[in-house]
Amino acid sequence: MTSGAPTGAAAPRRRGRPSRTQSDTGPATRDRILQAARDEFSERGYEKTSVRGIAKAAAVDPALVHHYFGTKEQVFEAAITVAFAPALEAPATVEEGPLDGVGERLTRFVLGVWENPSTRAPLLAIVRSAVNNDTAAAVFRRLIAAQLLGRIARRLELPDAELRAELAAAQLVGIAMLRYVIKVEPLASADMEQIVARVAPVVQGHLTGA
Amino acid sequence: MTSGAPTGAAAPRRRGRPSRTQSDTGPATRDRILQAARDEFSERGYEKTSVRGIAKAAAVDPALVHHYFGTKEQVFEAAITVAFAPALEAPATVEEGPLDGVGERLTRFVLGVWENPSTRAPLLAIVRSAVNNDTAAAVFRRLIAAQLLGRIARRLELPDAELRAELAAAQLVGIAMLRYVIKVEPLASADMEQIVARVAPVVQGHLTGA
Repeated sequence: MTSGAPTGAAAPRRRGRPSRTQSDTGPATRDRILQAARDEFSERGYEKTSVRGIAKAAAVDPALVHHYFGTKEQVFEAAITVAFAPALEAPATVEEGPLDGVGERLTRFVLGVWENPSTRAPLLAIVRSAVNNDTAAAVFRRLIAAQLLGRIARRLELPDAELRAELAAAQLVGIAMLRYVIKVEPLASADMEQIVARVAPVVQGHLTGA
Repeated sequence: MTSGAPTGAAAPRRRGRPSRTQSDTGPATRDRILQAARDEFSERGYEKTSVRGIAKAAAVDPALVHHYFGTKEQVFEAAITVAFAPALEAPATVEEGPLDGVGERLTRFVLGVWENPSTRAPLLAIVRSAVNNDTAAAVFRRLIAAQLLGRIARRLELPDAELRAELAAAQLVGIAMLRYVIKVEPLASADMEQIVARVAPVVQGHLTGA
């Protein structure tokens, strides 16, 4: 996965000394900090990662990290957003197409993100961080729940659409936990299509069932 | 929840100095160590807890902790086993009764354990430890998967019973994650009966459906 410079999103909050005098400013430096942040958060989790450590890994002054991204929480959110740009875009592909196939599309999408080693590692880091730290959990809530699930819920146009989307997500989150994190057998080694066959109808049922 | 001395289970592995000379041996000391272990693991998680720290909290020599329980992994397993004695007994109540009500009984049992503050805290500690540490994950697998799910799977008498039990568990694990750990709304504040009404049929379907 490349770490192309995120353009949209919130403007970087300025904090600390401006650091304008440093020679290594500009988009390339910003990307390098972001890449270092992803690596640090992936490797150490939210709690053990520091802005100082990210700055060191990116070979910049810590003030520059604050300059571009703000607080540690904001660096974390920026790092997640980049790492999951494909995942956060994906609801479009999940939403598109007939509503009666949304269960299978969402199931394949989520399992696909976990099966792919390049997205599994940062996702695992996010899950670990969210389970261990309330601030990281809040970031996780905002990104995943509000964006991914919120968009699916709006598509459903049902009064309890949000709860439905979360119960569907819960089925997939639980499978991710038991298959990829805790690695319970036979689920951990089960064929992907066998899982899709059993799970897609459940996800569909949560979303559009009676 | 009381911490009655577990009798069955594996005999304590003896390691380090025998510590027979210490005055404070006996079941009361063993219980005190186990209680200290539960508290330490609950508070710090698996990785940050040490046998030395447990010994200090129980006011005994670290050798005595090794004497009664063996390695840190074995202390962890003993502490979990005691904390979840009620939960690990519970499959009996889940298994009993008609098979077509097992989905609702398992759903109510798991949500009940999470709703109860005295079991939620140690459970959260175990989940955190299992997500962060492979050794703790292995202990979790042995206890929960092998014992709780294994017994339910045997009751089903179906060729893919284990996978069915794990997919059912995944739905409940995911709800626990989103409702109690990440605290996603509206799921976190949803009425328990509303959740049971939507989830019990799914769990039942995984266990006994087509």
